[in-house]
Amino acid sequence: MVAVVNNVNTTDQAAAARALGKRLGYVFADDTLLRRALTHRSAAADNNERLEFLGDSVLNFTITAALYRRCPDAAEGDLSRLRASLVRERTLAEIAQTLDLGAALILGPGEQRNGSCRRASILADTVEALLGAIYCESGFEATRRVVLGLFAERLAHLPDPDAVKDAKSRLQEWLQARGRALPQYTLVSRSGAEHARHFVSACRLPDGDEVCRGEGSGRRKAEQDAAQHMLTQLTEATA
Amino acid sequence: MVAVVNNVNTTDQAAAARALGKRLGYVFADDTLLRRALTHRSAAADNNERLEFLGDSVLNFTITAALYRRCPDAAEGDLSRLRASLVRERTLAEIAQTLDLGAALILGPGEQRNGSCRRASILADTVEALLGAIYCESGFEATRRVVLGLFAERLAHLPDPDAVKDAKSRLQEWLQARGRALPQYTLVSRSGAEHARHFVSACRLPDGDEVCRGEGSGRRKAEQDAAQHMLTQLTEATA
Repeated sequence: MVAVVNNVNTTDQAAAARALGKRLGYVFADDTLLRRALTHRSAAADNNERLEFLGDSVLNFTITAALYRRCPDAAEGDLSRLRASLVRERTLAEIAQTLDLGAALILGPGEQRNGSCRRASILADTVEALLGAIYCESGFEATRRVVLGLFAERLAHLPDPDAVKDAKSRLQEWLQARGRALPQYTLVSRSGAEHARHFVSACRLPDGDEVCRGEGSGRRKAEQDAAQHMLTQLTEATA
Repeated sequence: MVAVVNNVNTTDQAAAARALGKRLGYVFADDTLLRRALTHRSAAADNNERLEFLGDSVLNFTITAALYRRCPDAAEGDLSRLRASLVRERTLAEIAQTLDLGAALILGPGEQRNGSCRRASILADTVEALLGAIYCESGFEATRRVVLGLFAERLAHLPDPDAVKDAKSRLQEWLQARGRALPQYTLVSRSGAEHARHFVSACRLPDGDEVCRGEGSGRRKAEQDAAQHMLTQLTEATA
């Protein structure tokens, strides 16, 4: 793969990167590292995939440790759900928007035309890559400070753990409380090019006739959607 | 839940805990914390489940960061597979055995009769809980040192990333290379009491007649087993 320079003026990009540093509360000493963290795999072989892998893990751990301290009475399952609500793609994409990360992204020409700078998955991945880069440059404590800064509002106003149960968990609990068998999920179809994958999954209750379909940009999302439809159908039927 | 004291002599248990500290390369200042880390949920309400949640995360991150540095040329997928091979239950249970952790476990009476002190999942969870407790008491750097000590041999002799691909990944790649549809997995049955769950999963190829079943103590394990059978069947058929 050959490095492709973004069609955005590189002076603008450098300015965007500096502004990003300010909003992030962390100024990179190593411009090459920052550039790598902002580079999507569509733009260059020297991209942010490895940094994203590292950043995902340091983010997960920092949030885990913060929740452990802040919620001394929460059971493991509640901590797990709270964490999932904080580190999910949607939350990270929101944080990316407050950082105006879209303007600093380095994308290949195809992704630029697709408007990928607004795509939640790319924005979320880049937040993780930036955290991985901060860890590389300055270690755990510096990264922790940045994470706690970015999540300060959300950690100060944690939702009720019950409210953030996903649809598959709620469906499972609903069925178990009624002595029914666990739902089965199957992938019905997978289509679309890489930037616009579309999955359809089915949720079936093996001890009944109910089948619901769900869709989404990933298999898990399609399953969650199917579970939500099933829950609605079951609770409306028994209401 | 009421705290149940293990029927092992408590003096023996204290001696086992001290010996454990030596093998671990970390001596706990807080005996209550160490005791909590060793306490299975079957024994007391003040058990190690929250510490295990924390420890799983710090372990994951420490191994991620170690692999990131040691394998500068590995792609994200290879790092991910290497990490999975290091932090999986089997590896953690092996580490627990070198620590002679079984002797220090605090189990409820039922679990003691079941011989649960030798169960891989309980041993692995307790290793994670100990790491969580070290983080609570002494922070990230101290925990990192203990993790790197426990995994020193394994990190020095990392397997070839291709060799640690799981069966589902290998099956998917085999099928994709031949332009075939992705396999579908369904849960066939789930049985057994909590300490001896048994899952049966089916792997079906939607564009063919092939169906293989697999079994295991969890749904994922049963799916991996089914995928392995399918791979064997496919590669033997085309050999």
